Amino acid sequence: MGGVAVVCGGVGAARLLNGLVEVVAADELTAVVNVGDDMELHGLHISPDLDTVVYTVSGQVSRERGWGLEGETWQAMEMVGRYGGADWFSLGDRDLGTHLFRTDQLGLGRPLSEVTADIASAWGLDFTILPVTDDRLRTMVTVPDDGEISFQEYFVGRQHSVPVTSVRFDGAERTRPAPGVLDALNGADRIVVAPSNPAVSIDPVLAVPGVAEVLRRRREAVVAVSPIVGGKALKGPADRLLVELGRESSVVGVAGWYRDLVGTLVIDEVDRDLADEVAALGLEVVVTETIMAEPAITRRLAETAVDPASAR
Amino acid sequence: MGGVAVVCGGVGAARLLNGLVEVVAADELTAVVNVGDDMELHGLHISPDLDTVVYTVSGQVSRERGWGLEGETWQAMEMVGRYGGADWFSLGDRDLGTHLFRTDQLGLGRPLSEVTADIASAWGLDFTILPVTDDRLRTMVTVPDDGEISFQEYFVGRQHSVPVTSVRFDGAERTRPAPGVLDALNGADRIVVAPSNPAVSIDPVLAVPGVAEVLRRRREAVVAVSPIVGGKALKGPADRLLVELGRESSVVGVAGWYRDLVGTLVIDEVDRDLADEVAALGLEVVVTETIMAEPAITRRLAETAVDPASAR
Repeated sequence: MGGVAVVCGGVGAARLLNGLVEVVAADELTAVVNVGDDMELHGLHISPDLDTVVYTVSGQVSRERGWGLEGETWQAMEMVGRYGGADWFSLGDRDLGTHLFRTDQLGLGRPLSEVTADIASAWGLDFTILPVTDDRLRTMVTVPDDGEISFQEYFVGRQHSVPVTSVRFDGAERTRPAPGVLDALNGADRIVVAPSNPAVSIDPVLAVPGVAEVLRRRREAVVAVSPIVGGKALKGPADRLLVELGRESSVVGVAGWYRDLVGTLVIDEVDRDLADEVAALGLEVVVTETIMAEPAITRRLAETAVDPASAR
Repeated sequence: MGGVAVVCGGVGAARLLNGLVEVVAADELTAVVNVGDDMELHGLHISPDLDTVVYTVSGQVSRERGWGLEGETWQAMEMVGRYGGADWFSLGDRDLGTHLFRTDQLGLGRPLSEVTADIASAWGLDFTILPVTDDRLRTMVTVPDDGEISFQEYFVGRQHSVPVTSVRFDGAERTRPAPGVLDALNGADRIVVAPSNPAVSIDPVLAVPGVAEVLRRRREAVVAVSPIVGGKALKGPADRLLVELGRESSVVGVAGWYRDLVGTLVIDEVDRDLADEVAALGLEVVVTETIMAEPAITRRLAETAVDPASAR
C-alpha cells in the first residue's frame, strides 16, 4: 500500500495537510481525523475537525478571519439570537449547508465516512479523508465547578479559560475504526501525527480500539510534529492542558505524552536546546522550522514529517 | 372569554389574520393553526403554516416574492446543492434560523405551542398563535404512481401537479389539542374558518380529537370564508383537490364540505348566483369582496367574518 497516513485534529492538522498534499500523491495520502469534538446542535450533526480539514485544504477558509468559510454570512444565527436561542456556537449560513447535508445523509443511514467522502469530493479534494470512526465518540472534560462537560462547551462555550482536571472519550470502547482506517495506518510507509492538541485532538483518535495498537507496533514509522513551540501552543489550550494533566508545556512534555507510540518528534528551532531531553526519552529528534507561516515552510515541514532522515 | 378563534392553514389564513388583527383586540384573538404540513428535513423541524402566519402578520414576508422572508439569502441551500443533497424544499438562511431555534427547543422537551409563542413574541405579535396540537400529525396524500406520500412531497416536491385519490392525517387519532385550543374554540363569540384549503389545511385541524366536535356543537357561531372564488382557488390546488375528492370546485362544493360544522359561508361577489345553492345546503350566505388585494378589502372581509350580520 505504502503512502502516508496522518493522525489529525483540526487547524494544525489542516495546515500540515496543506503541505502534505504538495509532497505526497493524492492516492497515497490518508487523513484519519478526530471526531471527539463532534456534536449535535439544533438537531444538526456538526463535525468541526472534519470540516476544518476540508475547508482549509480546499482553500475555502476565510483569509481575513483565519477560520470559517470565505464569503460566509450569519443570517441564520442572527435569527436564533432574535429568539433568545443558543447562539454560543456560531454557525455561518454556508457552513450550515454542510451540516444540513451531513445530518440529512446520516439520517438516511449512511455512515459518516461515506458522507465525508461526498463532502470532500464536492470541494475537489482527491486524497482520502476518514473520520477515525463512524460510531459515536465524544470528548468530555472535567472542570472544577461544572463537573464533566462536552469538549465544545469547554472550548467554545467557556473559551477554554477554565482548568481541566481530566479528559474522557465517551463511548470510545464501543467504537470501531471506520472502514479503511486500520488499513491506511498498517499499510503506510509513514504515519504522521499532526501538530494538534495531544490531549483533546489526537488522544480521541488513539482511543478508538485498534488505532493506538498500530502506532505502538509501528512506532519506528511514526513521526509527530510538536504542537508546542517555545513552551506555548500556537493556537488553543494545548500548553495549559499539558500542565493541567500533569506534564510540562514543552516539547519534552509532548515527547513524554507520545513516547510509547511515536518514534520521531519534529521540534522547532527555538526548542533546539531541549533536543537532548527529548532524545533521553527514547525518541529520535528532528529540529526544523515548524511555524507554518508561509507555504514554503509548510511544504518543507511536510517533507520533513514524511522523510525525517532528509532533515537530520 | 369571548373573542374570535380562527381555524387556520397557511397563506390564506395569514392574509385574513392581517385584517383580523385590525378589528379584534389582541387578547381576544386566537389563531389555531394546522401542523399537518410539518416535516423533519435535514434533522430540522419545519412548521410551514405556523411560520407563514407569523412571518405574514408581522410584515416580514417578502413583498417581491410573496413568500419567504424579506432580506432572505440562500447560502445554506447553495451548499446543500453543491453536495448533491436534498434541495427540493428551499430553506432561506433567515428562515433556517427559525427552524434551528424550534428544533433546539423541541429537543429540550418543550412543546411546540410554547416554542411558537416565543417565536411570535420575538416578532412582536401579541395575539395568540397556537398549533392545533403539540403532538405529531402528518397529512399524507395518495397519488396514482407513488402511493402515499407526505403533503410536502406532494405540494413542493411534485408541485401539486398530480391527482390525489385520498388524504389521511397520520397520527391524528393519538393527538391531543394543544393547551388553550379547546378553550379558545369553546369560549369564542365567533369561530372563523379561514380561506385555506379545506382538504389539506383545515381538515387536519379538524382531525385533532375534540376540535370538529366543538364546531359541530357551535355551528351557528362558525363562519367560513370560501377559499374558492369563481370556481378557482386563489392559490394552490384547493380547486383540483375538491374535484379529485368528489366535490365540485365551487362555493357549493365548499358548502357541502363544511355543512355539518359551519353555519355561515362568506362567498365572493362573483359567486352571487350560487348563493341560493349554498343556502339550499342549510348554510347562511354572505356575499362580499373576498379577494384580499388591498388592506381595506382585507379589513372589511375580517369585519364580515367576525360579524356577518353587518354585511347582510
